[in-house]
Amino acid sequence: MNETIQVLMNRKSVRVFEDKEISPEIKDIILAAAMRAPTGGNCMPYSIIDVTDQSIKDKLAETCDHQPFIAQAKMVLIFCADYHRWYRKFKMAGCENIPAPELSNMVLATEDAVIAAHTACIAAESLGIGSCYIGDIVENFEIHKELLNLPPQVAPLCMLVFGYPTQQQKERKQTTRFAKSSIVFENRYRELSEEELLEMMPNDRTKAFYNRKYVSDFAQEMVRSTKEIYKNWNSKE
Amino acid sequence: MNETIQVLMNRKSVRVFEDKEISPEIKDIILAAAMRAPTGGNCMPYSIIDVTDQSIKDKLAETCDHQPFIAQAKMVLIFCADYHRWYRKFKMAGCENIPAPELSNMVLATEDAVIAAHTACIAAESLGIGSCYIGDIVENFEIHKELLNLPPQVAPLCMLVFGYPTQQQKERKQTTRFAKSSIVFENRYRELSEEELLEMMPNDRTKAFYNRKYVSDFAQEMVRSTKEIYKNWNSKE
Repeated sequence: MNETIQVLMNRKSVRVFEDKEISPEIKDIILAAAMRAPTGGNCMPYSIIDVTDQSIKDKLAETCDHQPFIAQAKMVLIFCADYHRWYRKFKMAGCENIPAPELSNMVLATEDAVIAAHTACIAAESLGIGSCYIGDIVENFEIHKELLNLPPQVAPLCMLVFGYPTQQQKERKQTTRFAKSSIVFENRYRELSEEELLEMMPNDRTKAFYNRKYVSDFAQEMVRSTKEIYKNWNSKE
Repeated sequence: MNETIQVLMNRKSVRVFEDKEISPEIKDIILAAAMRAPTGGNCMPYSIIDVTDQSIKDKLAETCDHQPFIAQAKMVLIFCADYHRWYRKFKMAGCENIPAPELSNMVLATEDAVIAAHTACIAAESLGIGSCYIGDIVENFEIHKELLNLPPQVAPLCMLVFGYPTQQQKERKQTTRFAKSSIVFENRYRELSEEELLEMMPNDRTKAFYNRKYVSDFAQEMVRSTKEIYKNWNSKE
């Protein structure tokens, strides 16, 4: 197994960081790697907001489902799907009746943003810096729009926080994954049997998961806020 | 620069492949890396369809905007956002009035699918195997739904094709990227000046890009088809 495969196989999310700064040189390497990530039509339909202001980190720790470790992170990057730049360029270039960016554009721009994000994540990991994705960045759009000065056609959909892992975090066991047979299918989607579904997780834990993750307050806030993100995206302003 | 950073910095998309198979052992390593990728709440809301049937590859080469190289790829992986498994599990566990998966669920499941996809991409790259993302998989949903046997709550939104690069592809120059100052912002989004926007790409090329990528036939098909993908996603079936 080469070094890169080892980095990929050994990664764990890190939520407790040492009080050690990430140097500007290391940060530059991570951001340069992110910007080299593949992007459809080479159009880079994303922006990266590098949050260095402690008061903004503190606020995000609240608005992203009250997770204080966000405020302790040494690097906080928000990857936004972004057609604002292109929309302005289309206008400047004299294009007429420009349609607002649609769901398809948001999906593909989010994919490019996440490809850049995950490149940053792996670059950091290879340098001994841990990270954690924060899905809760999709919540509280109105607050984030104002906090981060987001214009129309910009969607804050992916956040990563970084820092050097504490010894305890390094020693933490990796979580398990579901069986390959229930995730990877050959040629066509395969409906899992009830036995396979039960093997993934027993019913009592599934019900708890449903209540904690699928219909909880934060999940409902995600549903609401993501609709607002889309409205702001699908704009001709 | 360590080996992983080099892999990330040197990657280029590859669209011409040598006639050399990817061994089952190597494929297993790539899929194992993908399945180790981080996933929110450890819930793996995605499925990976490993297309080995040449007739399906041939069909995808047509339906994904007529790109014959797709049919030549030695490995074709379709990463689908997938709540179908969980929706069935919630029913089996006796949850009541289960809401259909929403846009927020599709965005976050797509992110996890893409994080897995990009992990596969980098694992392959480190093993000398090139790849290319095919955004056009979002087109022609009705055909793909039947071709791949996709149930409700499954969204085929990301495809990667793989193979060993030809010498010509290895020697091809890397594409450039926009300036860091127009992509990375500190603390708050920054509106670019008109000069900066022009520096990204002159107006005549922007107009050509608009016509070729934003309002072309395939782009309009993406707009239409992605709405159908969402309808199939947002289902209580």
